[in-house]
Amino acid sequence: MTDSRHLTFLPAERRITVAAGITVLQAARDAGIHINSSCGGSGLCGKCRIKIESGSFSEEESPRLSRKARAEGFHLACRTRLNSDAEVRIPVEAGIIAGGLTTGVSERRKAALQTFNIAELRRAGIFHPPVEKLFIELPRPGPHDNMADAGRLLTALASQYDEHGLVISLAVLRKLRRVLREDDFRVTVTIARPVNPHGRSYILNLQAGNWIKRNYGLVFDIGTTTVYGQICDLANGKIMAEKGEYNSQIAYGEDVISRMIQAERPGGLQLMGETVCATVNSAITAMLKKSAINREEISSITVAGNTTMTHLLLGLETDNIRRAPYVPVTTFLPPMRAADLGIDLADHAVSLVFPSVSSYVGGDIVAGVMGSGMYRDPEITLFLDIGTNAEIVIGNRDWLACAACSAGPAFEGGGITCGMRAANGAICDFDLNSATLEPMNITIGNKPVAGICGSGLLMIVANLFRNKIIDPDGRFNRETDSPRLRRSDNGFEFVLAFKDETGTDHDVVINEIDINNFMRAKAAIFAGVTTLLAQVGLGAGDLERVILAGAFGSFIDLDAAMTVGILPPLPAEKIMYVGNGPLMGGRMNELSNHIRLEVLEVVNRMTSFELSEVTEFKDNYLAALFLPHTDRNLFP
Amino acid sequence: MTDSRHLTFLPAERRITVAAGITVLQAARDAGIHINSSCGGSGLCGKCRIKIESGSFSEEESPRLSRKARAEGFHLACRTRLNSDAEVRIPVEAGIIAGGLTTGVSERRKAALQTFNIAELRRAGIFHPPVEKLFIELPRPGPHDNMADAGRLLTALASQYDEHGLVISLAVLRKLRRVLREDDFRVTVTIARPVNPHGRSYILNLQAGNWIKRNYGLVFDIGTTTVYGQICDLANGKIMAEKGEYNSQIAYGEDVISRMIQAERPGGLQLMGETVCATVNSAITAMLKKSAINREEISSITVAGNTTMTHLLLGLETDNIRRAPYVPVTTFLPPMRAADLGIDLADHAVSLVFPSVSSYVGGDIVAGVMGSGMYRDPEITLFLDIGTNAEIVIGNRDWLACAACSAGPAFEGGGITCGMRAANGAICDFDLNSATLEPMNITIGNKPVAGICGSGLLMIVANLFRNKIIDPDGRFNRETDSPRLRRSDNGFEFVLAFKDETGTDHDVVINEIDINNFMRAKAAIFAGVTTLLAQVGLGAGDLERVILAGAFGSFIDLDAAMTVGILPPLPAEKIMYVGNGPLMGGRMNELSNHIRLEVLEVVNRMTSFELSEVTEFKDNYLAALFLPHTDRNLFP
Repeated sequence: MTDSRHLTFLPAERRITVAAGITVLQAARDAGIHINSSCGGSGLCGKCRIKIESGSFSEEESPRLSRKARAEGFHLACRTRLNSDAEVRIPVEAGIIAGGLTTGVSERRKAALQTFNIAELRRAGIFHPPVEKLFIELPRPGPHDNMADAGRLLTALASQYDEHGLVISLAVLRKLRRVLREDDFRVTVTIARPVNPHGRSYILNLQAGNWIKRNYGLVFDIGTTTVYGQICDLANGKIMAEKGEYNSQIAYGEDVISRMIQAERPGGLQLMGETVCATVNSAITAMLKKSAINREEISSITVAGNTTMTHLLLGLETDNIRRAPYVPVTTFLPPMRAADLGIDLADHAVSLVFPSVSSYVGGDIVAGVMGSGMYRDPEITLFLDIGTNAEIVIGNRDWLACAACSAGPAFEGGGITCGMRAANGAICDFDLNSATLEPMNITIGNKPVAGICGSGLLMIVANLFRNKIIDPDGRFNRETDSPRLRRSDNGFEFVLAFKDETGTDHDVVINEIDINNFMRAKAAIFAGVTTLLAQVGLGAGDLERVILAGAFGSFIDLDAAMTVGILPPLPAEKIMYVGNGPLMGGRMNELSNHIRLEVLEVVNRMTSFELSEVTEFKDNYLAALFLPHTDRNLFP
Repeated sequence: MTDSRHLTFLPAERRITVAAGITVLQAARDAGIHINSSCGGSGLCGKCRIKIESGSFSEEESPRLSRKARAEGFHLACRTRLNSDAEVRIPVEAGIIAGGLTTGVSERRKAALQTFNIAELRRAGIFHPPVEKLFIELPRPGPHDNMADAGRLLTALASQYDEHGLVISLAVLRKLRRVLREDDFRVTVTIARPVNPHGRSYILNLQAGNWIKRNYGLVFDIGTTTVYGQICDLANGKIMAEKGEYNSQIAYGEDVISRMIQAERPGGLQLMGETVCATVNSAITAMLKKSAINREEISSITVAGNTTMTHLLLGLETDNIRRAPYVPVTTFLPPMRAADLGIDLADHAVSLVFPSVSSYVGGDIVAGVMGSGMYRDPEITLFLDIGTNAEIVIGNRDWLACAACSAGPAFEGGGITCGMRAANGAICDFDLNSATLEPMNITIGNKPVAGICGSGLLMIVANLFRNKIIDPDGRFNRETDSPRLRRSDNGFEFVLAFKDETGTDHDVVINEIDINNFMRAKAAIFAGVTTLLAQVGLGAGDLERVILAGAFGSFIDLDAAMTVGILPPLPAEKIMYVGNGPLMGGRMNELSNHIRLEVLEVVNRMTSFELSEVTEFKDNYLAALFLPHTDRNLFP
């Protein structure tokens, strides 16, 4: 955990604790304090002027703050970082009008982190990685004992470790003689366990001498957009390195459908496989370097991805995933040689691929369900992963139901006039001064505004709606008294940042088409949740917990989400997020063969519903195409 | 079976039944009738003159039979083949003196064929090849059934065939979608069974439509000298094609030791593997062509070879096989992809390699024991495979003991002045006119004498000993009254064929060094047998059956073998030979998964004795260095 500071905002006297190093602007947003900021916190607009009444700070200079203003004690909130506890005064012209300070702004509510505790594995006695290393010293051969090398090894493993029925691969046999004699019949044996307790274990590798402390595993979350990897120490579960990279397949289209279309072209399937593999391999190389681990010391890799990504990685045809009735080639996968998938690891490294439930509820969701722990808790839980597709899992330790629905690309910045992915310069957080209707844009990386990403879009729509600038049907209120609302060729639009406050050559705006696309997305999600709940005979009120998955879940402002009607109104303490669920679930899989078996049980327990085959889904969708919903009783 | 003819030899009035197409010379030898013949039956010496008194025949002309002799009704026995039953008169000058006709020659005794009856498998209900094909029609997917292709296939196999827990390989998954839809969800599934009944079956391949009648397996006997292969129909056990080729490794040395030395050179192991694989692949290609079977229709290959050949084929290091205490890398081998061994078959074809017992009792002997059936019979049986190494198995259905000893290369023509492998021109059969000491040389292929192979050597030594031309200690009797016995630079030698009766530029002879080498070989074998018998508390008299393996076993003249003391004197009806034991055992393995399990049980039951560690072995060896043996009581 990084250092933290206490920060008091004046005149509101709101006191918050913030992580050292964040800007005052970001701290204000987190505290629910409005400070005008059009340029996203990049120092371009010069609007976020503050005074520091006590405390030490460091500041980047900005040409937008005049010598005179600096002499008067002003600083830019977006350029100022605190070195100690401090008091910060927000001048009225930069902040909210006096009346709004105590009434309009409430404490922000975000989901709390909910995640499986890896230490649990050891406490529960199930810390047994699927791939283990054993050190063994064999009796040496002699005139009265000339048993074959393989028999000698197996006999010793049986007598010293109670390991029976092991299978030796051809590759191990080919080096067996030499390795046994390299360090006088003292060897380290890498053993792959079967997931089925009645199955046979495999000897994957053999090393002369004792190497049991050098045994590492990889975990990968292969997303349509981003690929995340971790190396973990299989001896103790520690994460040795991490790495995230954009999936190189992006060059062939943003969503899974475009990747599948590409895969159907001649040579396309191989190309898609090689492309995603290249990203995985690049991440592996980076992590090996960072952690000073040799490639040959990686014994296994667990991969969690959506069904399409998993198919493309393995070279399985996706043609029927994207065509009704949406049939994948397979949902379960046997352990395979990682090298056979094109993953750049030693020949002995084994790949364990997370099973999927269906074409649109993939291994990433299964891994997320594992990582969230919901599969072993009694509470009835809604697990929700929001992206281009929304995946929905409802259930608890006794039962699990799941479904997926297409939300469209709005939450990933697609189909939005100024939409963009969550990259530097994207408005990711937002507030509106109720009196002046001046925006507080916060961008990723404190860069000049470049566009709007999913979380920013949610905040913008919610604030426009709260301030009655848009109606429940998503149309702008033409009476709005602001120069920012204007008519354009695309109908009415609201200017979030004027051209010179951005890093672009145009004003960054949101229009009614954008709002409509956002509403379709949120309606699909809400309809998916309510339809699936109804299929299992429940209503939103029966939910005892909501777990939000993915980056979106960790950023989402709960009030905003309930304001627009993505989530049903629930007490904030019932809503959690799981960080990178697939990575967490993947790590559990890498570290515990018992969990690996539970993964199979969980998948078997997950009843999949095809929402397009449920007639109520369309009605629920149409009813949700309002802010927050046609049925106001759902959002009291 | 080929046509047979009745042939009566005059004046002896010996009547025998012979296969149509063999020469009169060969028929005479089989009947125990002596006809002088120095050139091996090639028409060169013109000594084998006969008259045909009745019957029709065909004859190749020979310049060695003068027009006058032809006019007198003479023919050459080695150029004449009978088309009908016939009477043949042997003139006294070409044959044996009158007195010898009725006394000196007895009926020849050869071992009878003993072999496993493949039809037994079906009668016993164990005709279940390790690799089977099933045809199945799957329910088509629809809106309410969008199970994954793999799940659909496995569910159907479970419900229609009671097949559970099948594993699908990546290769099958990669073509699964396409193949299922190619013939409307009607597919043929190739399934590999586990040898262990508790193991899991694998789906090796998938074909659109019904192909259960096109399922073939290969069986290979990989010998140091020769590689034999068969294709058999896995639906009914029929042999579709056969092929034998010299092992290309011969270019690197005749015996296993020279191959191992080669394998220890840099790159040598790979070279040896590729070399033997090239022979196997060439035999496969020839057999596929002959049988009009597609390469992709071969589902499995069973390989039986000695431990060294098996190691070299698999790329396993042989260094410790040839060094005390003679430790192989492995004796058991898991099923492997044939393609991984370099065998030119489809990727799905599986290779089943016969397990060995030790460094010098290999998979070929195990396969021979299976093929002979001795492992399931009650009779105490001696199984003997004679080559450069002699492998000895003693036992029955309850117990099995085995050992190997080095006989030296004499039985393969090595270390013999005019020795050669059993190829065209090699003297393979032999008789001596007791009165004239004139030889009857029979060569392979009826070609001019080129040298002496193993079976010829045995006949020559036995006949020289019977006629007291050599003593019990292997020395020539200097009193012998024959121009054929003479002194040379290498001591005394006996001329079998003079230069102009041969296809060589020298006389073909046998000398005392040759005889000594032969005696060492036969002494090692006899000592091996008696030592192993003693180890299990038995004597030669306890043997209820002897089974001779290999080509040598089918050619061996039992009387000759007992005369010189290779085999203990036993009634001929107790002595059998198993044709190509490894091929027979291999075919059993290809056709019955039950037998495959029995193979493992048999190997586990085979107690291996290291003769070099048994002190009595050396004494037994020295005692056997006489003709027939120091202890005359053993050969009454």
